[in-house]
Amino acid sequence: MKPNILVIAGHDPSGGAGIHADIEAIHSLGGLAATLITGLTIQNSQNVRGFELVDLNLLERQAETLLEDMQFSAVKIGMTGSPAIIRFIARLLDQLPGVPVILDPVLAAEAGGSLGEQSVPEALLGELFPRAMLATPNLPEAERLAGASGVVGAGETLLRHGCPNVLITGTHDDTDAVLNHLFSENQVRDWSWPRLAGSFHGSGCTLASACAALIARGLPLEQALTDSQGYVYRALQNAWQAGRGQLIPDRRG
Amino acid sequence: MKPNILVIAGHDPSGGAGIHADIEAIHSLGGLAATLITGLTIQNSQNVRGFELVDLNLLERQAETLLEDMQFSAVKIGMTGSPAIIRFIARLLDQLPGVPVILDPVLAAEAGGSLGEQSVPEALLGELFPRAMLATPNLPEAERLAGASGVVGAGETLLRHGCPNVLITGTHDDTDAVLNHLFSENQVRDWSWPRLAGSFHGSGCTLASACAALIARGLPLEQALTDSQGYVYRALQNAWQAGRGQLIPDRRG
Repeated sequence: MKPNILVIAGHDPSGGAGIHADIEAIHSLGGLAATLITGLTIQNSQNVRGFELVDLNLLERQAETLLEDMQFSAVKIGMTGSPAIIRFIARLLDQLPGVPVILDPVLAAEAGGSLGEQSVPEALLGELFPRAMLATPNLPEAERLAGASGVVGAGETLLRHGCPNVLITGTHDDTDAVLNHLFSENQVRDWSWPRLAGSFHGSGCTLASACAALIARGLPLEQALTDSQGYVYRALQNAWQAGRGQLIPDRRG
Repeated sequence: MKPNILVIAGHDPSGGAGIHADIEAIHSLGGLAATLITGLTIQNSQNVRGFELVDLNLLERQAETLLEDMQFSAVKIGMTGSPAIIRFIARLLDQLPGVPVILDPVLAAEAGGSLGEQSVPEALLGELFPRAMLATPNLPEAERLAGASGVVGAGETLLRHGCPNVLITGTHDDTDAVLNHLFSENQVRDWSWPRLAGSFHGSGCTLASACAALIARGLPLEQALTDSQGYVYRALQNAWQAGRGQLIPDRRG
C-alpha cells in the first residue's frame, strides 16, 4: 500500500513549482498526492505575475469529499495565500489528529513575486506553526516570519511558535556550500550540500513534499530529512532549461 | 532536452485523474507537463460531486505568460467544461501552428458525474476535432459525440469532423478483452488487451497524456499508440486502493 499525502498548495502552470512539484516528488517516492489548490498563479519559469485565490466554499466541499474517502499519512502545506485560507487549513488539520504536518511557509516565488496577502506571515505563525511537526522555510522566509535576522536568531524565534522542528534552508544564500539548519528543542543539526550553478524553480516545494512522502512512509524525521535533501540534490543536478528562466528540477529520483 | 507538453484539463483533488494523471504520465515518460486548469472539480475516488470552471480571463493571462516562456512539442486536451473555454482553446491552438494536438474529449468522469455544460459536445466537434491530430474518446463518449451507436458507426462519423485519427477505447465495454480501435483515413487498426478486474480512476487521462508525451518525443503515431497503451496497461496492473472507490493507476512506468 502506498501512503496518501494531503497536499494543500498553489498551482504553477509552468510545471516547475506548486502542486506539480508536489505530485512529481510524492509520486516518485511512492506515495499518492491528493491536492487542494489554494491559489491559481499566473507564472512561468521567469517570474510570478499574479494569482487568484480559490473560493473558500469550494475548498471546504473538496476537503469534505476527500476526507470521506481517504485516510492520510501526512499533510504537506505550501502556498496558503490568505489568513482566511489559513484558518480553513487549521480547521481541516484539527479533523486529522495525529497526522504529521509538514509546513513549507511559502511567501514568495523563488524568482520573486508575492504569493500571498500581507497578513499571511502572522496567520501562519498563529495557526499553522503550532499544528506542524516540521516547518521548512528558506532563510528569507524564516527571517521575515521571525522578524529576526540571521539563521540562529530566526531559528530560535520560530521554535517558540510551537513547531518542534524548523529546517531553515540556505539555497538563497551565496556561500560556497548550501547549509541547511535543523532547529529542534534539544539540538541544532546541519547538512551541507555543494551549491549547484543556476537558479531552480520549485526546489523548496520539492524538498517539503519529499519529506512528507518519506515521513508518510514511516521514516524517522532525521532520516527523512537526510534522504529528502539527497533526493532534491539529485533533482537539481539533473535540472534542465524548459523555458527561458529558472531550471526545472528532474524529480524522477 | 525534455519536450514540453501543454496540458489543458481539469483538476481532480483525489489524485486519480485530471492533471494529476497527466503530470505523472508525462513526467514518467520524460516530458514536462505545463498545465492550464479549465475546471476545479469536487470529487474523490468514488464520484464527481461538482465542478467550478476557471475564469476565462485568468486562463488567457496564464496562457499568454506560458507562451512567452516555453516552446511546446505537443498539446494534450482533457476536460474543457464549456463552449467558451473550448473557443479559448481553439484560439490558443491557432497560436501554436504545427504542434500536434491530442484531444481526450472528456464529458464525464469514469465513475459517472458530468464534467461539462450540455453544449460541450457540439463545441468539441466544431472547434477542437478539426485542430487535433488524434482524438481518444472512450466508446460512450464517441457514441454521444457522433450521435451514432456502435464503434464503427461512431468512428466513421467522428472521422468526418476533421480529426484524422480517432482512437475509440473499449474500457467501458464488458467484453473479455479491451478492444481499442483506431480509425484513420485509410485504415482501421485494433489493439486487444486483457481486461483487468476492477474499476480505475483516470485511465483515459493517462492514455492521452502518455500518447502526447511519446508523440512529443518524436515517435510515429502508431508506435506512440502501441507504447502508450502498454504503459497504461502496466499502470492499471499496479493500481491500488487509495480510497474507498476506484483503484488509482501506478503511473511510475
